[in-house]
Amino acid sequence: MGLLVVGSLGLDTVYTPFDKVEDALGGSATYISLAASYFSGPIQMVGVIGTDFPKQYIDILANHNIDTEGLQTIQGGKTFRWGGKYHYDLNVRDTLFTELNVFKNFDPIIPDKFKKSKYVCLGNIDPTLQLKVLDQLTDPQLIVCDTMNYWIEGKKDDLLQLLEQVHVLVINDSEARLLADEPNLIKASKIITDMGPQSLIIKKGEHGAMLFTSGTIFSAPAYPMEMIFDPTGAGDSFAGGFTGYLFKTRDLSPNNLKCAVIYGSTLASFCVEKFSTKGLEDLSYLKIQDRYREFLNLSRIDDTE
Amino acid sequence: MGLLVVGSLGLDTVYTPFDKVEDALGGSATYISLAASYFSGPIQMVGVIGTDFPKQYIDILANHNIDTEGLQTIQGGKTFRWGGKYHYDLNVRDTLFTELNVFKNFDPIIPDKFKKSKYVCLGNIDPTLQLKVLDQLTDPQLIVCDTMNYWIEGKKDDLLQLLEQVHVLVINDSEARLLADEPNLIKASKIITDMGPQSLIIKKGEHGAMLFTSGTIFSAPAYPMEMIFDPTGAGDSFAGGFTGYLFKTRDLSPNNLKCAVIYGSTLASFCVEKFSTKGLEDLSYLKIQDRYREFLNLSRIDDTE
Repeated sequence: MGLLVVGSLGLDTVYTPFDKVEDALGGSATYISLAASYFSGPIQMVGVIGTDFPKQYIDILANHNIDTEGLQTIQGGKTFRWGGKYHYDLNVRDTLFTELNVFKNFDPIIPDKFKKSKYVCLGNIDPTLQLKVLDQLTDPQLIVCDTMNYWIEGKKDDLLQLLEQVHVLVINDSEARLLADEPNLIKASKIITDMGPQSLIIKKGEHGAMLFTSGTIFSAPAYPMEMIFDPTGAGDSFAGGFTGYLFKTRDLSPNNLKCAVIYGSTLASFCVEKFSTKGLEDLSYLKIQDRYREFLNLSRIDDTE
Repeated sequence: MGLLVVGSLGLDTVYTPFDKVEDALGGSATYISLAASYFSGPIQMVGVIGTDFPKQYIDILANHNIDTEGLQTIQGGKTFRWGGKYHYDLNVRDTLFTELNVFKNFDPIIPDKFKKSKYVCLGNIDPTLQLKVLDQLTDPQLIVCDTMNYWIEGKKDDLLQLLEQVHVLVINDSEARLLADEPNLIKASKIITDMGPQSLIIKKGEHGAMLFTSGTIFSAPAYPMEMIFDPTGAGDSFAGGFTGYLFKTRDLSPNNLKCAVIYGSTLASFCVEKFSTKGLEDLSYLKIQDRYREFLNLSRIDDTE
């Protein structure tokens, strides 16, 4: 069985102070799948596109050992589109437009051959759909899930129902504060893990990430980047690298979860170095391991006492 | 020889959402000295107070093996006073008042017996005064220095002259951005170390601290605190713990600097748990080492590959 990834596929228009792209390959399932593809295959992707989705984008996915059999193509439909603009410090972004298009009526049907998937990564989509996915699976052993402010505010009940089934929730610091209704992240982490997830990862952008699991806290550093080119997809790449590494190693021990957090951070750091998915297209496991070691060295200390 | 600490002593009035204090023991030299006192003695303090400085505060210092012979008491003068108010998230503070009083004409005269000090920590005071201190020392081997936005903006020339002599500059992220005139902290670190300091520590509050030394970067986690009671003095406690540990170990290798950063973070975490200097008054080296180990565990990962 492969790693099941469900989420959005889209055509992104992105403006940063450095450059812009139109109708670039995007979407949460895309970033997750590309990031995860460097660890072990196959990646089994479920999502929806229109007939305007470029053939060359399908080729990029296929070239990364991503099985697109679960992609629904709506005849005559238009693919989901998102437009955003980043400001100088790249922490602030304005959404310019969101066209749901074929995503509006998306019904995530899991092909029979994917239903026995043991490792699942649910990209950031409506929790109602995320629940529908889980309902079709026979024996998931690791469910990693992302969400966002929009669903925390608008679909809280469905989200809470979902969280009871989720093993690892991956969200950023503002989402954690909103979900827990608590500004202190340490207190928030306890409130959120009480909602169901055995493990919680809080991503803090340029300040790294924190893993809360089995009553312990792991603090992962951020990669010291002199230049962030395009932050789009960083969170999805994190989730993809994290889940991909766990899928490859089949080891859910606390220490291996820590390693997976560093691999997630590694993939996110590659993602933001180039526009759109470019940073994830030409990697190798060797390159990933080199940066993983750089990450470890950032917080390494030889304790002689 | 002892560890020479020069800075302010003051009477602080602090309001937080939890409590308030008036005329509490404060000042950069106070926090630095108390934090450093747990590592090795004696601490040799140079500063100025008025005759209104309570005898019991002198006793607190003396009880921590702090030599107050370098304290100038201005007869009939009033001690430096500062008042501040913290808001709910404790990251924002308003200065309510600053009364320089005896600090206005402070001339830091280093007693002869302190002039051969090898280890020096310059608390956050006017860089003109910090320069005056260094002029009186015969052979300093480690000069750790703090500063703030006020001096970066108002006394840039003196500060730049000072930085040429400083071994370790300890500032926070907003100060680093201002000093380097560069928003990216990695780029800023290079600009600042080009100004003179061999090592730079950038404190990031709830996001930990970064050490830049010998071309490498070390990322230290923050202690996961559910409750910060009073942030006053956290930066000074960091500098005191950092310098105190180096003074005790007499080892300026990159790895020992990393350990010192964790000890600095440790002392800062104790500081903010109680009001004013209370968090630094009843520690022990054992308590400090226990928390130091907790810090190490936060970023520890067993790398099996």
